Amino acid sequence: MLHLPKPFILASGSPRRAQLLRQVGLSYQITVAEVDEEYNGREPIAFAKELSYKKARAVALSTDYAILLAADTIVVLENRILGKPRDAAEAATMLADLSGKRHEVITGYTIYDRPSDYAVTDYELTQVWFRDLDRDEIDAYIASGSPFDKAGGYGIQDDFGAVFIKRIEGCYYNVVGLPLAKVYNDLKTYIQHPKIDNE
Amino acid sequence: MLHLPKPFILASGSPRRAQLLRQVGLSYQITVAEVDEEYNGREPIAFAKELSYKKARAVALSTDYAILLAADTIVVLENRILGKPRDAAEAATMLADLSGKRHEVITGYTIYDRPSDYAVTDYELTQVWFRDLDRDEIDAYIASGSPFDKAGGYGIQDDFGAVFIKRIEGCYYNVVGLPLAKVYNDLKTYIQHPKIDNE
Repeated sequence: MLHLPKPFILASGSPRRAQLLRQVGLSYQITVAEVDEEYNGREPIAFAKELSYKKARAVALSTDYAILLAADTIVVLENRILGKPRDAAEAATMLADLSGKRHEVITGYTIYDRPSDYAVTDYELTQVWFRDLDRDEIDAYIASGSPFDKAGGYGIQDDFGAVFIKRIEGCYYNVVGLPLAKVYNDLKTYIQHPKIDNE
Repeated sequence: MLHLPKPFILASGSPRRAQLLRQVGLSYQITVAEVDEEYNGREPIAFAKELSYKKARAVALSTDYAILLAADTIVVLENRILGKPRDAAEAATMLADLSGKRHEVITGYTIYDRPSDYAVTDYELTQVWFRDLDRDEIDAYIASGSPFDKAGGYGIQDDFGAVFIKRIEGCYYNVVGLPLAKVYNDLKTYIQHPKIDNE
């Protein structure tokens, strides 16, 4: 449906984001630049937006003519940012902490135009409620290997992760890793008014 | 993860419900009975629950030993029930009506045990917000053929339907056609306490 006037670069190595873009019929190249993703203590929304901008900018510098999209998704539980679990023990603790509670998933994203260097940076926040999880369910999910490449240790789109979540408020795809409706709208606006301003 | 003590019968012809059950590792047979699905003017939640019970019961009568699951999903926009669109014109009207507005998706479901005839009937309600749709977007979606077998004329899980929805409140899978977390929990309770009572 969207016909972008320039090459489209996804500045993210996330297979889930790539899949979501394919889902809405966008073709893209993937170029990922190394940026420091260490949490710097900033307010979570500002941090996610800033990191998406840094990711977009790092790739933009090596291209002359393109539209770029970068994103960063973080999981916030009771004012604590949950990263990707490093091992099974950490995944088990994370999932037990999420069990029976509400948390927030924030994706900051940046659409960046070259050569103009105009950029839009925005975010989406979704609230997610886990039902009470059994130890058995947590163990079986960890054994599937799924938690390890995901912030917060779960994927809402996973076969089993799906039954962990009883309710969400906000954009579903934001929890997968990209707020699809919002990004789609921003790209549509960009096509209609190529000179988009930073808000 | 769930090990049901009896054969499990899905009393629904919906390929989406079958897919969701496979997703959580349940194996099942499908048996569908004809029931009158005509809207009888009842309050929507009561109607969806009643219809799921009728569907379960109609199949249960032909089996001696099984657990059955039946469900019925309805879409309610401003107190009006939206069915499956019969043609492109009706689909276009339906999607234009949904555009920019909030509606409700209600799934009534029944878990039915044979031979005891104990049953649990419950429901889930999810609120869904569409963003403003262009006529082009509506036409392209209708051309994909997707609206015609779906109440309300859209599938939240569809490649393109996904960008129509900017926000939900409630269970995502309920909008797909089965409130996965709730049904999973009820089946777990059933396994632990096989004699489940009708609420």
